[in-house]
Amino acid sequence: MRTRPLKVALLGCGVVGSEVARIMTTHADDLTARIGAPVELAGVAVRRPDRVREGIAPELVTTDATALVKRGDIDVVVEVIGGIEPARTLITTAFEHGASVVSANKALLAQDGAALHAAAEEHGRDLYYEAAVAGAIPLIRPLRESLAGDKINRVMGIVNGTTNFILDKMDSTGAGYQEALDEATALGYAEADPTADVEGFDAAAKAAILAAIAFHTRVRLDDVHREGMTEVTAADFASAKEMGCTIKLLAICERAEDGGSVTARVHPAMIPLSHPLASVRGAYNAVFVESDAAGQLMFYGPGAGGSPTASAVLGDIVAVCRNRIGGATGPGESAYAALPVSPMGDVVTRYHISLDVADKPGVLAQVATVFAEHGVSIDTVRQSGKDGEASLVVVTHRASDAALTGTVEALRKLDTVRGVASIMRVEGE
Amino acid sequence: MRTRPLKVALLGCGVVGSEVARIMTTHADDLTARIGAPVELAGVAVRRPDRVREGIAPELVTTDATALVKRGDIDVVVEVIGGIEPARTLITTAFEHGASVVSANKALLAQDGAALHAAAEEHGRDLYYEAAVAGAIPLIRPLRESLAGDKINRVMGIVNGTTNFILDKMDSTGAGYQEALDEATALGYAEADPTADVEGFDAAAKAAILAAIAFHTRVRLDDVHREGMTEVTAADFASAKEMGCTIKLLAICERAEDGGSVTARVHPAMIPLSHPLASVRGAYNAVFVESDAAGQLMFYGPGAGGSPTASAVLGDIVAVCRNRIGGATGPGESAYAALPVSPMGDVVTRYHISLDVADKPGVLAQVATVFAEHGVSIDTVRQSGKDGEASLVVVTHRASDAALTGTVEALRKLDTVRGVASIMRVEGE
Repeated sequence: MRTRPLKVALLGCGVVGSEVARIMTTHADDLTARIGAPVELAGVAVRRPDRVREGIAPELVTTDATALVKRGDIDVVVEVIGGIEPARTLITTAFEHGASVVSANKALLAQDGAALHAAAEEHGRDLYYEAAVAGAIPLIRPLRESLAGDKINRVMGIVNGTTNFILDKMDSTGAGYQEALDEATALGYAEADPTADVEGFDAAAKAAILAAIAFHTRVRLDDVHREGMTEVTAADFASAKEMGCTIKLLAICERAEDGGSVTARVHPAMIPLSHPLASVRGAYNAVFVESDAAGQLMFYGPGAGGSPTASAVLGDIVAVCRNRIGGATGPGESAYAALPVSPMGDVVTRYHISLDVADKPGVLAQVATVFAEHGVSIDTVRQSGKDGEASLVVVTHRASDAALTGTVEALRKLDTVRGVASIMRVEGE
Repeated sequence: MRTRPLKVALLGCGVVGSEVARIMTTHADDLTARIGAPVELAGVAVRRPDRVREGIAPELVTTDATALVKRGDIDVVVEVIGGIEPARTLITTAFEHGASVVSANKALLAQDGAALHAAAEEHGRDLYYEAAVAGAIPLIRPLRESLAGDKINRVMGIVNGTTNFILDKMDSTGAGYQEALDEATALGYAEADPTADVEGFDAAAKAAILAAIAFHTRVRLDDVHREGMTEVTAADFASAKEMGCTIKLLAICERAEDGGSVTARVHPAMIPLSHPLASVRGAYNAVFVESDAAGQLMFYGPGAGGSPTASAVLGDIVAVCRNRIGGATGPGESAYAALPVSPMGDVVTRYHISLDVADKPGVLAQVATVFAEHGVSIDTVRQSGKDGEASLVVVTHRASDAALTGTVEALRKLDTVRGVASIMRVEGE
């Protein structure tokens, strides 16, 4: 066994970083045995050096992250700062000075993954980021290694714990969105500004990363169609229950049926209660993968939190350290398929549409005609009404998003349609 | 990109082998891109060369497996023959002649994993076997790589599809064991001789492999306590339902609470309906992993079948080929922890015990005294009876298997206990 320790520099020492440091200390012997050499914390870059950091020697702490990654003796830089800058520059500088990088930064990888991979390859170093998607759940490694001999057709997952907590609460208690959000905030599941979660930005970044790996194609955050879940109502959950469904915020990465293009999207959707994703409760995450040979796989676990994320970071540290000792690098970016990313209009799925309509004869015929004119086939219609007001619930067969959008625009122009109460996609059937 | 193709020799061309060969042909371009070099089928060893093998060039087929692995130009030997011999000798010979090995052979790995790993290491080659446990579900790689920086405390899974199909059928229809087995046989889920599945041998081999990886300790098939599921009755399912449970055949690998030893066992057990494993239906497999930092993870998917198993084999082929090109090897055996494997008597869990007793005063007091004398604490007791016959259902708190066994022996000696109708462990709470 080699005895010179591998040196790890930690950028950021918040919830995740401090847990990484703690486990590196408490599990040092295990890590040494598993890596084949000791691994030591060589420096910790923080913004506020005066905060007490239990278990971290004060002389390791610095505010100069740039100097730390430029030291030249660092084997692995662990980036758990988050955000685009200074993380991007620090990672690039780390590669230039001979370090491999382990990152948990979904936003950066979704935006600049290709450039970062290129920098890693140029310098013969590793870029690993298991912790960037779905916390502790092993997902990046299974997708890019275990399924490397298979053809992945769909990745559909609950990849944001905050929104799953809120939706689960709405489902189980009948609460409205605001009430469920308030509870999530009070319990620490939602941040003071929940925008990144509830508007789907966080999930969209993860969708971009998953799609890129699954389809061997560059997919950036901008390629992901994104709809948040702030408009989901208690009435939507009641409609879902009537369909034998619940509502989840899903990240869906799909290969088109002809195989020639891919799509990536994040939006709330109804899924049948019998689908494995329907029973994912609270802040848990789960990702459902469909491939040609393996069939249907699901990966389930805690999607966030200091310890789970640290577990994923440490798995990557071990892998990167083993690679360094062996003089090798792990799999880098695989974008050879270079499939076009189609716009949302090309996505084909089913829809659940609630319309407020006039309660008079002929309305259903008018509405059905509009669907037919746009080539959207109707599966079921349910009509109910009294006192001159009525509602129509239409569930369609599979149709393109463009066709559905055209249908809805035309429906809004009908005198007898007073409003479109909700449109919800139906997935997982 | 290197252009000399990597050469793969296939040992066995049954359900899995023929699917591996098919995918290697149909996905050749993808495999080339992902590996960084073309990969070609260089030979296929079979027992019956006269059987038509669609898509495999006849000149590749041989009955001389030994000559094939000795050729010297083979990069990867894929062993999908199964059984101990000739598989063991062929794998060892393959290493001696410079090949890496991908195997799906759970029985062999559970019996001789250490020796095979040593042979691989001696010759600087890889031994990969993702397909040996739970078919297509990525499990070996996540356990030994993604969780390499974590401490795994428990691996509990449904790792045999045949028995899960039978138990699921009994649960959903109220059928008895034989009726459910007959249906499984008719549908092709059970083999003509189902012993390896229903007596738990198959699951025990997988438990040994999982325990070895999870605990960095050598665990062999002989170390695994094994009970089959042929004694599970419709009455047991009725009891389970009353408890809010179902019954599954579980493989359970645990670290003792003091961390100083491990256990591995396979037996039927009640688990609460709220546990993620309870909703694993039909022939699907799922493995639940609990670790210090990551918390609770679950991996779910098809546990058998030609295509799913081939997916796992191909993922390993890609990894091993990449390693060969990079002049590296992947992680080998990790047995540094060398924890003792404790006998079944040391396992601590809860128990559900049904007793047939005389319907007269004082029986419960007698029975409760026996439990107390053996240090087994009772959680609940339910008593019912008529016409001089009565039954007692006792659910215990956590107790060692040895204490429970002593309790049951003493109960059998009581005049008022006519028989012990069933003993079932309760897991996953």
